[in-house]
Amino acid sequence: MKRIGILTGGGDAPGLNAVIRAVVKRAVGQLGWTVMGCEDSFNGLLDQLRVRELTLASASGLLQRGGTILGTTNRGDPFHFRRGGEKAARDRGGELARNTRELGLEGLIVVGGEGTQKMGYRLMQEHGVRVVGVPKTIDNDLDSTDLTFGFMSAVACATDALDRLHTTAEAHDRVMILEVMGRDAGWIALYAGLAGGADGIAIPEIPYDPDVFCDKIRERGREGKTFTLLAVAEGALPTDCAPLDSSGTVKAGGAGVQLANELAKRIDAEIRVTVLGHLQRGGSPIAFDRILATRFGVKAVDLIEAGRWGEMVCLQGTHVEGIPMTDAIGRPRLVHPDNELLAVARATGVTFGDRRGVPAR
Amino acid sequence: MKRIGILTGGGDAPGLNAVIRAVVKRAVGQLGWTVMGCEDSFNGLLDQLRVRELTLASASGLLQRGGTILGTTNRGDPFHFRRGGEKAARDRGGELARNTRELGLEGLIVVGGEGTQKMGYRLMQEHGVRVVGVPKTIDNDLDSTDLTFGFMSAVACATDALDRLHTTAEAHDRVMILEVMGRDAGWIALYAGLAGGADGIAIPEIPYDPDVFCDKIRERGREGKTFTLLAVAEGALPTDCAPLDSSGTVKAGGAGVQLANELAKRIDAEIRVTVLGHLQRGGSPIAFDRILATRFGVKAVDLIEAGRWGEMVCLQGTHVEGIPMTDAIGRPRLVHPDNELLAVARATGVTFGDRRGVPAR
Amino acid sequence: MKRIGILTGGGDAPGLNAVIRAVVKRAVGQLGWTVMGCEDSFNGLLDQLRVRELTLASASGLLQRGGTILGTTNRGDPFHFRRGGEKAARDRGGELARNTRELGLEGLIVVGGEGTQKMGYRLMQEHGVRVVGVPKTIDNDLDSTDLTFGFMSAVACATDALDRLHTTAEAHDRVMILEVMGRDAGWIALYAGLAGGADGIAIPEIPYDPDVFCDKIRERGREGKTFTLLAVAEGALPTDCAPLDSSGTVKAGGAGVQLANELAKRIDAEIRVTVLGHLQRGGSPIAFDRILATRFGVKAVDLIEAGRWGEMVCLQGTHVEGIPMTDAIGRPRLVHPDNELLAVARATGVTFGDRRGVPAR
Amino acid sequence: MKRIGILTGGGDAPGLNAVIRAVVKRAVGQLGWTVMGCEDSFNGLLDQLRVRELTLASASGLLQRGGTILGTTNRGDPFHFRRGGEKAARDRGGELARNTRELGLEGLIVVGGEGTQKMGYRLMQEHGVRVVGVPKTIDNDLDSTDLTFGFMSAVACATDALDRLHTTAEAHDRVMILEVMGRDAGWIALYAGLAGGADGIAIPEIPYDPDVFCDKIRERGREGKTFTLLAVAEGALPTDCAPLDSSGTVKAGGAGVQLANELAKRIDAEIRVTVLGHLQRGGSPIAFDRILATRFGVKAVDLIEAGRWGEMVCLQGTHVEGIPMTDAIGRPRLVHPDNELLAVARATGVTFGDRRGVPAR
Repeated sequence: MKRIGILTGGGDAPGLNAVIRAVVKRAVGQLGWTVMGCEDSFNGLLDQLRVRELTLASASGLLQRGGTILGTTNRGDPFHFRRGGEKAARDRGGELARNTRELGLEGLIVVGGEGTQKMGYRLMQEHGVRVVGVPKTIDNDLDSTDLTFGFMSAVACATDALDRLHTTAEAHDRVMILEVMGRDAGWIALYAGLAGGADGIAIPEIPYDPDVFCDKIRERGREGKTFTLLAVAEGALPTDCAPLDSSGTVKAGGAGVQLANELAKRIDAEIRVTVLGHLQRGGSPIAFDRILATRFGVKAVDLIEAGRWGEMVCLQGTHVEGIPMTDAIGRPRLVHPDNELLAVARATGVTFGDRRGVPAR
Repeated sequence: MKRIGILTGGGDAPGLNAVIRAVVKRAVGQLGWTVMGCEDSFNGLLDQLRVRELTLASASGLLQRGGTILGTTNRGDPFHFRRGGEKAARDRGGELARNTRELGLEGLIVVGGEGTQKMGYRLMQEHGVRVVGVPKTIDNDLDSTDLTFGFMSAVACATDALDRLHTTAEAHDRVMILEVMGRDAGWIALYAGLAGGADGIAIPEIPYDPDVFCDKIRERGREGKTFTLLAVAEGALPTDCAPLDSSGTVKAGGAGVQLANELAKRIDAEIRVTVLGHLQRGGSPIAFDRILATRFGVKAVDLIEAGRWGEMVCLQGTHVEGIPMTDAIGRPRLVHPDNELLAVARATGVTFGDRRGVPAR
Repeated sequence: MKRIGILTGGGDAPGLNAVIRAVVKRAVGQLGWTVMGCEDSFNGLLDQLRVRELTLASASGLLQRGGTILGTTNRGDPFHFRRGGEKAARDRGGELARNTRELGLEGLIVVGGEGTQKMGYRLMQEHGVRVVGVPKTIDNDLDSTDLTFGFMSAVACATDALDRLHTTAEAHDRVMILEVMGRDAGWIALYAGLAGGADGIAIPEIPYDPDVFCDKIRERGREGKTFTLLAVAEGALPTDCAPLDSSGTVKAGGAGVQLANELAKRIDAEIRVTVLGHLQRGGSPIAFDRILATRFGVKAVDLIEAGRWGEMVCLQGTHVEGIPMTDAIGRPRLVHPDNELLAVARATGVTFGDRRGVPAR
Repeated sequence: MKRIGILTGGGDAPGLNAVIRAVVKRAVGQLGWTVMGCEDSFNGLLDQLRVRELTLASASGLLQRGGTILGTTNRGDPFHFRRGGEKAARDRGGELARNTRELGLEGLIVVGGEGTQKMGYRLMQEHGVRVVGVPKTIDNDLDSTDLTFGFMSAVACATDALDRLHTTAEAHDRVMILEVMGRDAGWIALYAGLAGGADGIAIPEIPYDPDVFCDKIRERGREGKTFTLLAVAEGALPTDCAPLDSSGTVKAGGAGVQLANELAKRIDAEIRVTVLGHLQRGGSPIAFDRILATRFGVKAVDLIEAGRWGEMVCLQGTHVEGIPMTDAIGRPRLVHPDNELLAVARATGVTFGDRRGVPAR
């Protein structure tokens, strides 16, 4: 009988609990293994006291529950660990490996984004701890998987917000800007913008010219539409703007406020900004994500059963597969200029703030 | 056969369309009257071209629709009217009265908040235009009615947001602050805070001591609860703080950010702020508000049928009544220190940031 | 320090857990009492093993949770108790009283409908067990309280169903019938019918003439509306129909199917029936019910603190009060012919299947 | 400038209006074509009066609206047309072709299920009317496309129903059966069952043995779980049962009631059945379906622009493609015994009422 550990790291995403549930249902309920849950990403494993057995009973009712019962953190790297007063960072990888052994764990299921996967991989490479990865990124910006759980729940949340802003924008003849998550990749803005009927979408991959959005607003005015809806990823920037990291003061207020300010310089309109923020991470996962998370959890156990340590679960087309973790770590998955959804958005009249017309496709 | 007008003014609220629908269903469908809709509050009436007949067909499908098909505005007072280049404000009340006569309208149903009701009342007093009022305030701060439509929809939206923040706060061991509407009155924060299980609520009526919220966070920590949920009205202020209007810079970022800053000075915790903003006004009204709006719309027509011009519809306990508009205009309805919901919140352990303990009740 | 028990009986309703939470937060968290939860209504108390302490920790996360963590049942009366093979019913009231004493409980909070309240009252009268009641009826048919928790959640569920049926009825030119709960009283049908824009509503209090609904369908056809939405309480009956209890075969298929059959005899239309059933009881309570349930739970503890045993919590207008349990038990609260909502529905063109026109009001 | 027609046929599905909107936005807004909408599937085209131009303005607000503004019908085949009194069916294909020519339509976009696609294909084969197909099947049982719009909205609706039944099942210790759509294919039951945490799923592709479900109920009882949730497709049948079409009386009450009866013969449990029915078709499409429908609509126009008449839009993996309509018409897509989701469900302990254990995979 195997004995494995599981932990969740990085920002939370709807569906984390559904992964945990599927792992327990499959490993404990069907295969008779023991599953130990480590609290707060790798931190619980550093402190052996915060590792507990996950029984079938503890997995009950998790499918629809947001967050993660194991807790998570996006602070701290066990390989550069520093607590409160400590001056220098320590490498605690050896401790992690020792604790894994002492707990009798054959290996770990590491559920998390790229940072967490890298830590898991390093633990395997440097300390021989066997690891299987399950990808988590609410922004959908992992290159190795077509989709991850949590993303469509975030899109649903942002779409609902656009629906709400739609009615109040229309009543007040306003330009309504919704800022959604997406620091490097504009997936949520693109999907939710399409689903919520945004007239313009600003994403990090396409620097925008504020005048193009103004043209759109005026064009709508000529068609008798006195309001406009814009979806903006938090990482979107105007063409003439220094990127955020070169000067922290450039984007006081975030991408939404910045776009609003640019528009206000150019047109006379009532402009309002809403920053959706943490609401996108919270709440019960939608059906789509519950299913995807369950598939991922079952696959992770299957990989372990087949001795395929060092692999990460991923979705390729309609199939859930295992690929080497090394393939999974690398550059983020960005919205490509030839992306089909981008083209579909343009084809239905959505502008991305660039001068590019409708693609030939 | 009577011929009346209807307009909607001030910030929009879920249920405005349901009022319009009820007025048309009752007045046109049952009584055979003609109902003319004036666009964008009093502005459409100033410009006679923006007044259109509301037929039974035009009222179809309105019950569940957010916003207002008549449009609204909270800019501009017809009694102090000023457009673009104009230097001095003009009193256009006479024009309104003349246009009302020329359109053959026996009177107007004025749906709106205190500002709009005052304009309606002035139109009646100074120019003899007959008016019936329907109260609208998403903040629920009108003294003359126990509840208005839109408020419970806003509460539902804010409660859903707290539910979402709950799961992510728990996963990340965070202090999550939700800023909701309520400049003068804390009703939305109070209701949603209760319904969403907030641990602390800050409202304009009770200046808060940040240390009290810190005590609450620490107390929860001792009970093993590593996260805290706070609901804050946009008008809430700390005890030692100059009010917003005396110095615009005091509250850069709003009440939520201010509270976060105060907490960050005092405790070591991850604190995040979400400003719900316009989402609270948007979207389809919940069943409760559709019913209340329908009752108000029918009552407005009934008041006119009974010749009770100059009255405003209101909810008193479980009854919809008509009261003199003069009674309706005045001081806002604030959360009283002895309010039952306030006491209920305290009785379940919610703190309001003051030193007051659990009331005897 | 007091020590009390709490149980939930009868059909479940959204908000039961919120009552339990409020009782624990108030009694345990604020007053330092001990609260024991009895499982499955009075049954857990008959079997002392199924009584457990409700700590503050156990009340965590209950506010938004449907169902009841204590379990419930609408089978079995401890005063006429009969298990499996037993031939004669036994009165186990004495056992209940003895167990209450042995558990050291000063008294019980009995959350339930009329049946459960009657049992509680009898326990007090015949065996001296002190009891405070909290009313629960998803049908809203208790005479002594204006509203109870769970009802508005059921109305929200039924309204959402009508919204869904609306779009598909319109697409297919159909008559869509939604059967909702309400055996004796038509409150859910009336509220949801109003909120969901039903064209006709059938309730137990008003025997309907199928021809009147047919007239409505034809009238809508003449107005160019090719679909019709009807909300029917499960206890609604046609005028010429023997009531259900005189002959069990009369209503094979329920009130919705019966109405469909009556219509199909008279008009050529595609008619479809949906029976909402248990969906109305399930799921998370809406904000309104979470607040009401919290108020009721706090009030129940306050009544005990004030020594007001034998009273039941109720809502009167906007106030939560305590009234003698004897006042609470009696005839059900039915929809009165002069009810304001009934009049409002008629005033907006809704028919109840009777020949009565629009009331003068 | 092209001039094309569009119609929607068969049962409605959330997303039909989003397809229409995308076609209009792309063809009218971007390409300058004229789009004519035919009402009630082919019937509006038979009667030229029920064909109207779809302007950009008419496409406004359609994205989130359920149903279809063009109306639909699943009654009547223009090739076997029979009205009221008519004795013999007539082939009106020639009329359709003539009307298409007289309206100056270059071709038709036919949105519908297999029946509608077949009619479109026949119109092209026999009468030379150029056609492009867009697949619609809420059951997801078209062999040529991995997914269609509407399906995930139905799954979301059914999942929400399971969530609701979950809480009330738990409160009452009941076996709750939810009957969902799926006459030939069990996709909705499989997806929603997984997402809603059903303990057992019955689908048409796997005849079930009631004893297996009883074993599951008993097994759960031994684990301390006193309730069970079952999802049943409307076409599911027990192993020893004559199929529905050989004898109409076999399944009085539908698949849910039949399963309940079989269970009631074998175990002593409170069993309740809910038939979700038309609710699954109604309401606003979820974000996923709005996006997919928009992609399909844009692709249909692109196929026409490229002269690819006779093709049907489909989703293959993550790509939207065009394939010959002949490929699209044929056998339905059923749940294959080796389907991954089926295996995932079994791997998490879900039973399908057969004796098959967990697959090796």
